[in-house]
Amino acid sequence: MSLTGSAAIDVARSALVASRRLATLPNTARNDALTALHQALDKNRATILAANARDVEAATRDANNGNLNHSVLKRLDLSRPGKYDDMLEGILSVRGLDDPMTLRTLLDEGLSLERVSCPIGVLLIIFEARPEVIANIAALAIKSGNAAILKGGKESMESFVAIANVVSEAIAGSQVPVSSIQLVKTRDVVSSLLAQDSFIDLVIPRGSNELVRYVKENTKIPVLGHADGLCSAYIHSDANTKMAVKVIVDSKTDYPAACNSLESLLVHQDVLETILPEVAVALIDKGVSLRCDEASMAALASTLLSDQLSKVQPSTETDYDTEFLDLVLAVKTVPSTGDPASAVEAAMAHINVHSSKHTDIILTESRDLATLFMSGIDSAGVFWNASSRFADGMRFGFGTEVGISTNKIHSRGPVGLEGLTIYKYLVRGNGHGAGDYHEGQGGRQYLHTSLPIAE
Amino acid sequence: MSLTGSAAIDVARSALVASRRLATLPNTARNDALTALHQALDKNRATILAANARDVEAATRDANNGNLNHSVLKRLDLSRPGKYDDMLEGILSVRGLDDPMTLRTLLDEGLSLERVSCPIGVLLIIFEARPEVIANIAALAIKSGNAAILKGGKESMESFVAIANVVSEAIAGSQVPVSSIQLVKTRDVVSSLLAQDSFIDLVIPRGSNELVRYVKENTKIPVLGHADGLCSAYIHSDANTKMAVKVIVDSKTDYPAACNSLESLLVHQDVLETILPEVAVALIDKGVSLRCDEASMAALASTLLSDQLSKVQPSTETDYDTEFLDLVLAVKTVPSTGDPASAVEAAMAHINVHSSKHTDIILTESRDLATLFMSGIDSAGVFWNASSRFADGMRFGFGTEVGISTNKIHSRGPVGLEGLTIYKYLVRGNGHGAGDYHEGQGGRQYLHTSLPIAE
Repeated sequence: MSLTGSAAIDVARSALVASRRLATLPNTARNDALTALHQALDKNRATILAANARDVEAATRDANNGNLNHSVLKRLDLSRPGKYDDMLEGILSVRGLDDPMTLRTLLDEGLSLERVSCPIGVLLIIFEARPEVIANIAALAIKSGNAAILKGGKESMESFVAIANVVSEAIAGSQVPVSSIQLVKTRDVVSSLLAQDSFIDLVIPRGSNELVRYVKENTKIPVLGHADGLCSAYIHSDANTKMAVKVIVDSKTDYPAACNSLESLLVHQDVLETILPEVAVALIDKGVSLRCDEASMAALASTLLSDQLSKVQPSTETDYDTEFLDLVLAVKTVPSTGDPASAVEAAMAHINVHSSKHTDIILTESRDLATLFMSGIDSAGVFWNASSRFADGMRFGFGTEVGISTNKIHSRGPVGLEGLTIYKYLVRGNGHGAGDYHEGQGGRQYLHTSLPIAE
Repeated sequence: MSLTGSAAIDVARSALVASRRLATLPNTARNDALTALHQALDKNRATILAANARDVEAATRDANNGNLNHSVLKRLDLSRPGKYDDMLEGILSVRGLDDPMTLRTLLDEGLSLERVSCPIGVLLIIFEARPEVIANIAALAIKSGNAAILKGGKESMESFVAIANVVSEAIAGSQVPVSSIQLVKTRDVVSSLLAQDSFIDLVIPRGSNELVRYVKENTKIPVLGHADGLCSAYIHSDANTKMAVKVIVDSKTDYPAACNSLESLLVHQDVLETILPEVAVALIDKGVSLRCDEASMAALASTLLSDQLSKVQPSTETDYDTEFLDLVLAVKTVPSTGDPASAVEAAMAHINVHSSKHTDIILTESRDLATLFMSGIDSAGVFWNASSRFADGMRFGFGTEVGISTNKIHSRGPVGLEGLTIYKYLVRGNGHGAGDYHEGQGGRQYLHTSLPIAE
């Protein structure tokens, strides 16, 4: 497919036409297409993994030459244990989801109101490394009745072509219109697609901060996603040391390249010489370097061994605004004022300014302080005594996800099927007019009786 | 308050600070503020209505001089029967609503996930005539825990100042921070406020199409609302004539200046000489002028009396894209093909292109065709044998509303409390790390057990 600006319009327009048809297809027809998609991806596993291996090989070369960030490699590799099976499993779990009806009201005799879930319309998904995104999004789009235009990055081109062929073939044998999932391989077409705001309803970029920022700044279409994943943790003075060590180490080291990994650690002043050293040693053992403010630096200097201290250095202000995506953690002290709530509020004030509204953690034994933190932190996820790495659609039990949103409207956190749907209001009457309902003589009154939500 | 660009920043920043505080206030504190607001607006009714009368008087002069659209007058007038009481009632019904928890899952032993409703943050509401919007929005903002900046139009300035004073005084006596509701009276400040995308999370314009378009084109902040309210109805060949007359007349004439009034009528070719004339006569009796395509014009010419025909004239193509907001209706014929579904699809194709995705109607006796229409029409409301005028938050039983959205994401149709909230994910653990969950030996498995949603 060769795409100039006008060809981008053709892609977008045919997606719109397909989306209208998709919206009227019954759930069974959409489920059949998902079954076909699952079978095709299972059958073509070897071909797709071979194509993916070629992508990984090329990317490894680029990474070794310093032309590509190493964090991309892990995301690109479909042969990592469980990854391909997770992708297949995701399609089946999406198939099992239901279109929810969320409201049903009897307005008056013979006059009913329903709010039903419906597709948004046309989605544009732009992604870089992760090849499994194609299968995730194709499944979610078909299930939710949206048409999707997918634009992959050059790093995953071989995987993309292999999966794209399988997807197209699987859909061609179903009732789902072929243009429902369009896979755009041409380079340099992103700006043309971002201009199609009369056809495209939502853009979902998945990739580097730069990609997401570019998309946000270059389109009038609403954008769902996150540029940064700057997650923070606050260790309060009453935290359980063992829990703190476990949660911080997991958050930082389980998968440092992920958006839900920890980047900043706030520590209450009273535990700088008790909890912090244990956390620091455990992190250093896993290869993490620490960037510390003056107080935390001094506390570690007096408690750590000298070879451990080689991994500790003074922080700069920009460290608290940096998503390292690597084995580096910024550490900052929260001054003690005597009042526990005011320390939590100081931590919240820092986090609400510096974090990226993705996922933030408090470690405390106090339910009240945890509740304060959970209501005051303005982020998609707020976790108490648990790792930020749980911020994930699969772990949350949503099946597959299209990404994690730090938006303040529509969809927040891991975005699954719900984030790709909106709703409409259906009213059914027998010739009812609104003019009959009024306070005056003979005026009808609304019943507004909630009805059970039937499937 | 005098606002330059930097003063707009001050307003927006203090709203952000207030929103953080509001987010941690318990529901009881917010309800107390609503009670105080209700009492204050009730007590100051005479003062506010006197101020409103001055606005109406000035606007009437302007309208008579041709400097203001007459449709504004009705919207401006708070003394219309029931309007003030509806405004007061709206505050109480908002007070009674609950913050919903929408998901609760046991991820593993001791590890739980909750999705809870939470405020979006800072809202900017820009409105023109309707003075009751101030009370509606103040109530919804306080209840939902959002801070709101309200900017009124010059037509309602006297009403605005009177209500603003009452609102500010009522809040000052409560735990809700005073900066939670800021009422900006200065002119020419809209563009400065629209630039505060780092402080303001959502803009809701309520007023003319021009206002909404201006807002949408001049901000990076998400905009909730509708520019046009171009509602259409389709009369299928099997429609019940009496229902069609009732629904069309109510949709067009109950309140022609409203966004949910009817602007376009599509008529199946087979009923041009049977149902259409009865609908046309009933509309003409109510003072409606018709703009007809060739076939419908010919049908009416052969069936109507000559004095009735004086209200019928040929349509132009632009009539089908015009929101008349007046006693004018565009009429178009849907050709008969023999296949009922294909006629409905032709009607849907016209509506999906020309309507504004607000509310559209089908008149038919067929449940199957109604279902096709309701799934295929891409609008916030799709009504079967019922007037478009029911598209309203009060009539839907939502209590008060902040407006009607034709957006494709976040909130659609009449926007009440839910449209001003988003959600966050809370995870509570006992030191859980994500690295412990894996397929290999000793790996833990997620439970993903749905838990009952407790209040």
